Amino acid sequence: MTTTQHPWQRDSAVVDHRGLRVLDMEECLARLGSCPIGRVAFHEAGGLAVLPVNHVLDGTSVVFRTRWDSRLASTVDGRPVAFEVDDYDPATGTGWSVLVRGIAECIRDETTGRRLEKLLGMPWLGDVEEAFWVRIRAEEISGRQQGDPRAERGCC
Amino acid sequence: MTTTQHPWQRDSAVVDHRGLRVLDMEECLARLGSCPIGRVAFHEAGGLAVLPVNHVLDGTSVVFRTRWDSRLASTVDGRPVAFEVDDYDPATGTGWSVLVRGIAECIRDETTGRRLEKLLGMPWLGDVEEAFWVRIRAEEISGRQQGDPRAERGCC
Repeated sequence: MTTTQHPWQRDSAVVDHRGLRVLDMEECLARLGSCPIGRVAFHEAGGLAVLPVNHVLDGTSVVFRTRWDSRLASTVDGRPVAFEVDDYDPATGTGWSVLVRGIAECIRDETTGRRLEKLLGMPWLGDVEEAFWVRIRAEEISGRQQGDPRAERGCC
Repeated sequence: MTTTQHPWQRDSAVVDHRGLRVLDMEECLARLGSCPIGRVAFHEAGGLAVLPVNHVLDGTSVVFRTRWDSRLASTVDGRPVAFEVDDYDPATGTGWSVLVRGIAECIRDETTGRRLEKLLGMPWLGDVEEAFWVRIRAEEISGRQQGDPRAERGCC
C-alpha cells in the first residue's frame, strides 16, 4: 500500500497497489447501508455460489431474508461467507466495491426477527413459508474506489 | 422443481421450488453477454472474496481483465471460481441472476489476448503494467428470474 496522491483524492486518501482509493470503515458501512442489493458468496454441495439478496445493515452485521430452502440454510449456518456491494458508472469510469467477510447464522429468534422486519420492510414470518433470515457477523470489512469520487453516483 | 404456471410465464416456463422461473441456457448466455459488470467469487489467503469485474462472453467462457496482483493471479489460476451477473428493479419487484461455475485460468498467450482485447475493448498489454486476463471455463451455468419478465429492464 502506498500513499501516492492523485488530484481528485482527499488529503488523507490512501491508495492500494492498483491505484484504487482505500475506503475507510465509515465509508464502507455507509455504502453497505445505502445499497439495497448485495451478493452473498458461500459454499454449497455443488461448489461456490453467488446470489443477489436484499439486505440491511444492523450495526456492523449484514442481514437479509431469503427464500433458500432449508438444505441451503443448514449449508451456510455457522459457516464463513463473503458479501459484496458495488456500483460502477460506465459513463464516468468510476466505481467502488465493499467486501464483508464473516460467519453466517440463521436467525430463529422471533424478537430479533420482529426488530429486523422493521429495518428491512419485509415480514419476519410472512407470505413465503420457506423464507428465513440470515445474519453475517462481520469479521473483516474493506472497500475500494476507482476513479474520481466527485463524478460518482450515489449508489447501485 | 415443479412446472407450476403463472400468468406471466411462457408456456414452456419451468419454475423452481421458490417460484422463480428457471432461465434456459440460451437466456443465461444472452444475459451473461449483455451485462458488462459481473462479480467473481474465489478463495484467497484471507478467505472468500467477491470482486466486480468488466467481462465479455467468449463462447461459453467468461473472460475479464483485472489489475489484481500476481499473487492473486496464482491464487485463482487453475482453481474453481464462481461468477454472477444480475439485475433487480425495485420499482417492479422483478429481477434475475445467472451463475457460472468453472475453472479460472490466466491467459498468457498473446494471440488469444489480442483477440480478446477486441471483444472487451481493453488493451491486452496496455496502460496497466500488472493487468492480466482470466478465462473462466464454464462447467455449470444456471439462472433464475423473479417476477414478470415483461416489466423487466434490459440489463444491469
